[in-house]
Amino acid sequence: MFDCEPSEVLVGNGAAELIKGLFVALEGDVGIIYPTFNEYPERIGEHRVKRFIPKNKDFTYTIEELKEFSEGLGALVLINPDNPSGHFFKKEEVLELVEYLGERDIRFIFDESFIDFANRDEVYTLLISKYLQRYKNLIVIKSISKSYGVPGIRLGVLASSDMDLVNKVRKEVSIWNINSFGEHFLQIISKYKKDYNKACDLINDERNRFFHELSKISFLRVLPSRANYFLCEVTAGYTATKLTEELLNKYNILIKDCTGKIGFENGEYIRVAVRNKEDNNFLVEKLREVY
Amino acid sequence: MFDCEPSEVLVGNGAAELIKGLFVALEGDVGIIYPTFNEYPERIGEHRVKRFIPKNKDFTYTIEELKEFSEGLGALVLINPDNPSGHFFKKEEVLELVEYLGERDIRFIFDESFIDFANRDEVYTLLISKYLQRYKNLIVIKSISKSYGVPGIRLGVLASSDMDLVNKVRKEVSIWNINSFGEHFLQIISKYKKDYNKACDLINDERNRFFHELSKISFLRVLPSRANYFLCEVTAGYTATKLTEELLNKYNILIKDCTGKIGFENGEYIRVAVRNKEDNNFLVEKLREVY
Repeated sequence: MFDCEPSEVLVGNGAAELIKGLFVALEGDVGIIYPTFNEYPERIGEHRVKRFIPKNKDFTYTIEELKEFSEGLGALVLINPDNPSGHFFKKEEVLELVEYLGERDIRFIFDESFIDFANRDEVYTLLISKYLQRYKNLIVIKSISKSYGVPGIRLGVLASSDMDLVNKVRKEVSIWNINSFGEHFLQIISKYKKDYNKACDLINDERNRFFHELSKISFLRVLPSRANYFLCEVTAGYTATKLTEELLNKYNILIKDCTGKIGFENGEYIRVAVRNKEDNNFLVEKLREVY
Repeated sequence: MFDCEPSEVLVGNGAAELIKGLFVALEGDVGIIYPTFNEYPERIGEHRVKRFIPKNKDFTYTIEELKEFSEGLGALVLINPDNPSGHFFKKEEVLELVEYLGERDIRFIFDESFIDFANRDEVYTLLISKYLQRYKNLIVIKSISKSYGVPGIRLGVLASSDMDLVNKVRKEVSIWNINSFGEHFLQIISKYKKDYNKACDLINDERNRFFHELSKISFLRVLPSRANYFLCEVTAGYTATKLTEELLNKYNILIKDCTGKIGFENGEYIRVAVRNKEDNNFLVEKLREVY
């Protein structure tokens, strides 16, 4: 499924199990870019987390900022595209960062769970032996649930050429951790590579269209995203919680209320999923009615 | 599915995940009866394991022996029926033990993964609120894979009325640890209670018949068992490894070679599963040919 040596890859009961095991195996402070996927700081532990909170309204950040932030860290976590912001670094930028960190003996944890959704001319993966071998400090994490749309099957992978680390994490995960359905999925998925790529392209096109439609909603500020979701600021006095409740109660639409997440103290934010055209249009229509 | 409060029960990605989490949450030395299911000592760690090895050829032990052995322990693990010996304690005996340990502030970890296979007049469960509430030191572990024959689905439960402990273990297991198939299984399984009981009864009857057939094999000493397997000593010069290899290579029959397991230093031991009549007869027939 991936272009790696079997020994470099560890399969987990979801990425969550691997994230948990990884931070037991790793030592030192870990840099986290906020707002983030809570499972990271949760598993690292408050005392080991160093926070980077972008000082702008779009939650964007540059490689230079991360280089500066990384000083003294044992490891830096980058989710790319980021969750929930949708912020995206191109391959060259990420390679520059991993090399910089490697020279300073800082681990680079690259979570590419959403990367298959990136624009077709920018999509890439670091789950390749060539990169793992070149950058010994690189640890790639990928949830299979996200891009393949199979959360219930519980599958994630972690890859690194640091055998010591891989074996330490392996000891942390349970034996027989993968269920039979997940095993079967991994056996057959490569047959569907073409269909999968086509589906990702569809998301690509629909995301662009949906972005323009959402941007027309007067009380939303939509942030650009390369993932299958958009982070939006709710403006004009509506609160994120109120809007979320109303969409759920009135129209049975579930969006993510980001209230309470670290990094969102200065505004009202929601995250909405990119679905098919029909679903997306339904959401836009209801957003128009709601206000 | 069980007669417990939801708050008392924790569901795991197999019992293995719960065993792993439990011994991170628990402190102190843990008593283990050998030979055993390796996952217990493995997860407890060599330095915390206190070994009890029965001093007889049948690997049997009494409540009195366990009481004596328990002195100074933080917890005692009992698998009942035991794995791989098949040794079995009746309910009254186990309740006597848990009460004795409770008075001495020793935790009692009762693994009843194989208990549904016990003779129909002796079968019982401690996965009941009444017992969990009465014995605060009681921790029940049950693999759903074993008796229900669904290892691939990865399900296990841990139950205790000690909310502090349950919450500690909950923190140790991954979020979203159960896959959708496991969830669905738990939702529908109670509909099949009758069929399940019938199937257990069939195993009961077949185990008795199979025991007599196996006992006729001249080079096997079969130990009594209330589980769905028999531990057998291989006598008359045949080694367990040689016998296992021959059955696999010649007839595609897989039995468990117990060589190398702690507690089996003074003999050659195998474990064979109780399957349906046809399979069991096939094994007996091939055992006759092999020697």
